[in-house]
Amino acid sequence: MHPEQILKEKYGLELPNPTIPSGFYTPVSQTGNLLYVSGHTPKLDGRLKFKGKVGTDLSIEEGQEAARLAAINCLAAIKAYIGDLRKVKKIVHVVGYVRSADGFGDQPKVLNGASSLFNDLFGESGSHSRAALGSNELPGGAAVEVMCIVEIC
Amino acid sequence: MHPEQILKEKYGLELPNPTIPSGFYTPVSQTGNLLYVSGHTPKLDGRLKFKGKVGTDLSIEEGQEAARLAAINCLAAIKAYIGDLRKVKKIVHVVGYVRSADGFGDQPKVLNGASSLFNDLFGESGSHSRAALGSNELPGGAAVEVMCIVEIC
Amino acid sequence: MHPEQILKEKYGLELPNPTIPSGFYTPVSQTGNLLYVSGHTPKLDGRLKFKGKVGTDLSIEEGQEAARLAAINCLAAIKAYIGDLRKVKKIVHVVGYVRSADGFGDQPKVLNGASSLFNDLFGESGSHSRAALGSNELPGGAAVEVMCIVEIC
Repeated sequence: MHPEQILKEKYGLELPNPTIPSGFYTPVSQTGNLLYVSGHTPKLDGRLKFKGKVGTDLSIEEGQEAARLAAINCLAAIKAYIGDLRKVKKIVHVVGYVRSADGFGDQPKVLNGASSLFNDLFGESGSHSRAALGSNELPGGAAVEVMCIVEIC
Repeated sequence: MHPEQILKEKYGLELPNPTIPSGFYTPVSQTGNLLYVSGHTPKLDGRLKFKGKVGTDLSIEEGQEAARLAAINCLAAIKAYIGDLRKVKKIVHVVGYVRSADGFGDQPKVLNGASSLFNDLFGESGSHSRAALGSNELPGGAAVEVMCIVEIC
Repeated sequence: MHPEQILKEKYGLELPNPTIPSGFYTPVSQTGNLLYVSGHTPKLDGRLKFKGKVGTDLSIEEGQEAARLAAINCLAAIKAYIGDLRKVKKIVHVVGYVRSADGFGDQPKVLNGASSLFNDLFGESGSHSRAALGSNELPGGAAVEVMCIVEIC
């Protein structure tokens, strides 16, 4: 099934327009058959939907939603670059940062919001390595930032 | 000499069982001849051995031990994936995060615990580029997290 | 025009000597035609020129200068490795960390100091993807740390 169809049927979501880079960089950069996807935050319609620190301002569940939205924005950037998400051969690697309140250590749970999405949409090809990190501050006060490396056909 | 033999003779350590991912990701992900190894924390027998912030809760020396253990866990994941550490052609790149107390700036010293291990076990092939970062919080309260990119034969 | 000539004409700067690694790693590590460049801080003549947290100790403009200097140090490392910056085929990916005061969210603006430099010096080949992160602490109290992945001819 087409990844976008799974997004619709399982999550009830459409792939949004790609977010506009907040600086002098490109959303996606290719070398060989690898795409380096810029760090994406949980923006929707040009505005950050999830701001604050997970553990105080946001619950784990809200953090997971934020991570999922950041991952969806990565996919929107990839689609804008390659035209069709079926050209994704493999989600290789994901790095995610969770803006963390003092003592918050559930970054892996939060980032499962992104990882689950990749697994659901791409099946075996969505299986990726990952690093889950905490951060005190992120761009615009975002709760989460997700970047990824993707192999294409 | 076999990397595991050096680990035994120089450090008195056996390669532990690989740690179980704390989320919906895989320990190692391959693209071409590159392995992206997930972020690993200083776990031993399924429990975090080094928790807290380096600079207050832990000394630099303890942080170095933590970094070494995280690096060893990376190697255990690599071995589980490729079967034999002699298939490692090159440790390409290491990124390490040190959970840092206010004003702590010795992340490079701490991460030398990981870098020394790679250099010792793989000789010239262990020579890698590196980024040493500080972080306010890490998964489970871990003191250190290490990820790496490895080229295999 | 030669990247170093642009650096001179547009920025009035010479490429400095490469900084000496602050640990057991190498400034640049190659796999295939990709260079992984270690995290570099805003050092000049062996000393950190920009220390502190952006948002309190440093302004955004000072942070941008710091990011530019860290990027220049990346280029000095690349030149030392490949001999001539004209062998750079593409700046693929940039990751930058800004040591951030509480509530500071302008990491992208700060890192534009690095991104602008890459764009100016390499034109279309300088176009890169990027992740901009905040951090509570960085090596030696540095205000910024920049690492990059570069494709060479």
